[in-house]
Amino acid sequence: MIDQPAPFTPLSQVGEWGLIAKLQHIIGPPASPEVVQGIGDDAAVLDIGGPELLLVSTDLLIEGVHFDPTYCPLKYVGYKSIAVNASDIYAMNGTPLAVTVGLAVNEKYSIEAIEAIYTGIQLAAVEYGLSVIGGDTTAAPSGLQIAITVLGQVKKDQVVYRSGAQVNDLICISGDVGSAYAGFMILEREKQVFKTNPGIQPDVVPYEYVVQRQLRPEARKDVIELLAQLNIKPTAMIDLSDGLATAIHSIAHSSQIGAQIYQDRLPIDYQTIRVAEEFEAPATNFGLFGGEDYELLFTLAQADYDKISDHTLFSIIGFVSDVNTGVRLVQSDDTLIDLPLVGWEHFQSK
Amino acid sequence: MIDQPAPFTPLSQVGEWGLIAKLQHIIGPPASPEVVQGIGDDAAVLDIGGPELLLVSTDLLIEGVHFDPTYCPLKYVGYKSIAVNASDIYAMNGTPLAVTVGLAVNEKYSIEAIEAIYTGIQLAAVEYGLSVIGGDTTAAPSGLQIAITVLGQVKKDQVVYRSGAQVNDLICISGDVGSAYAGFMILEREKQVFKTNPGIQPDVVPYEYVVQRQLRPEARKDVIELLAQLNIKPTAMIDLSDGLATAIHSIAHSSQIGAQIYQDRLPIDYQTIRVAEEFEAPATNFGLFGGEDYELLFTLAQADYDKISDHTLFSIIGFVSDVNTGVRLVQSDDTLIDLPLVGWEHFQSK
Repeated sequence: MIDQPAPFTPLSQVGEWGLIAKLQHIIGPPASPEVVQGIGDDAAVLDIGGPELLLVSTDLLIEGVHFDPTYCPLKYVGYKSIAVNASDIYAMNGTPLAVTVGLAVNEKYSIEAIEAIYTGIQLAAVEYGLSVIGGDTTAAPSGLQIAITVLGQVKKDQVVYRSGAQVNDLICISGDVGSAYAGFMILEREKQVFKTNPGIQPDVVPYEYVVQRQLRPEARKDVIELLAQLNIKPTAMIDLSDGLATAIHSIAHSSQIGAQIYQDRLPIDYQTIRVAEEFEAPATNFGLFGGEDYELLFTLAQADYDKISDHTLFSIIGFVSDVNTGVRLVQSDDTLIDLPLVGWEHFQSK
Repeated sequence: MIDQPAPFTPLSQVGEWGLIAKLQHIIGPPASPEVVQGIGDDAAVLDIGGPELLLVSTDLLIEGVHFDPTYCPLKYVGYKSIAVNASDIYAMNGTPLAVTVGLAVNEKYSIEAIEAIYTGIQLAAVEYGLSVIGGDTTAAPSGLQIAITVLGQVKKDQVVYRSGAQVNDLICISGDVGSAYAGFMILEREKQVFKTNPGIQPDVVPYEYVVQRQLRPEARKDVIELLAQLNIKPTAMIDLSDGLATAIHSIAHSSQIGAQIYQDRLPIDYQTIRVAEEFEAPATNFGLFGGEDYELLFTLAQADYDKISDHTLFSIIGFVSDVNTGVRLVQSDDTLIDLPLVGWEHFQSK
């Protein structure tokens, strides 16, 4: 009896980018002159007349999709919900200012559970210097859903889009990649062990770093601050929420460029490598497709190379090439392959 | 195995206001000097340096809680999700500017279904002059959840809070009350009839107005425009999303005043009266506790009386009294009773 328009095309058939294109077609170009950038970057950009641009981004965290309360403490869920949204503001080279929090919970969540979520939210708010300014808490038929909208600000001449990368720019990332996915694999394995034999306590200490990357990621406030100190304005930037391969393809698509990435340059933590070995999977795949590493990927004019070459926080993983070359990976044996645009889902099925 | 902090207090035990107080305690006062008004009004208010204040509000619409897809077309769900958020901006005497849209859907929703929701969203966006600037669409284990955050603007000297009502002010509302609830009662009844005997087609034509008030409410853009034309700035304002009684109690609580409401002054449509009769319930109860009438309630200095007395759009339903008198209802027989602070849930159980 649901008013389902015919035909019925499942969501999986068009993918995220296909869906966004369809929805953009329906909503058309922004009606308001204040909108500088609508859908299509880490955050929307508005110019409402102040000295700085306003940044706005929304992210949903859904129980059973984005987090598993059987191993993720609710305080961490709250913390993560803010961190991943702050990350979108940093990816525009901005500073987070405020968030609204929408919480939909079913009856298995108590007042104390909601307080635990908010305790995590407030911890992250302090960490990222933002204020919780509003929200809506409501009953829901299933589990926990968190909808965060974050507002941020950026000076007009400092905003960085996905679309600014130029041929010959360097491609850099902060931190390491694949560790959040390694943490996910460990937590899922331990969950299965616990289910089979509740007497065995999970031992995640040897995997502490990767588990923490999954459960309580941090947004790279420090990266934005360091770039400002070094007087560097990236030509393009994006966060690694959906994995390195997706991020590079997004920059390539928005900037109309190609890219060449060097497998041996990917910064992968030794714990991630060990986990990949345990699962008999290439650590490179963790790094390229793992997702949920809230690191920043940015492109940089070659003239800025000297400014960052000393900083261990950054890795130069490749360079921007002509759009006709596509996005390619230089493998360890020097062979070149097209870097597939696959995300989390595809990778999991391997 | 869920990390549920002990003890377990169900949400229903503290109520919405109790929960908000607990969460406000956790998050403390806003850290950012830009925040003029955080949690506690129809929208948060920020001063980020432009000529106008920024307004921000978030509302969730959950399938099975806020709408029933068995009788609510998805296009209307989309439209309503924007209208109820625009209403929060109007309640601050502001103008909506932009929205972000978070959609969580399970596999029963097709691409075409999501397009239908967005078609409704875009219709409302045009109606209220706002732009869809971003969003997040994700899989969810159950049904459809929509999280909308709306941004708006208001001139610094024109913002209206819940907290500005003064003793002897007039209490006014736009439109009529109770009709959205009447529509809900009709739709629920017809749904049961259809379940029992699918051969009988629902006939909602005699109830067209109240059904439309439930399925496709409009936010009162026209009220804000008329108030500006009449050169009226209310002393306090709120929308009637949670019902008239809750709205008056909110104003009373925020402004530290009392109020006297006249039962015979409540503007109730004849269709609403007819539906109330069919359900053998007092139409006054529909009007006081029904909720989901996205009308505006505002208080007004008596000196402004002449400016609005000619306008049939407005009804003067009472006046502001001293805080010690509480919120009272003058019944048709001139007896005075305390107006209970009951909302939707309580009323349904009658």
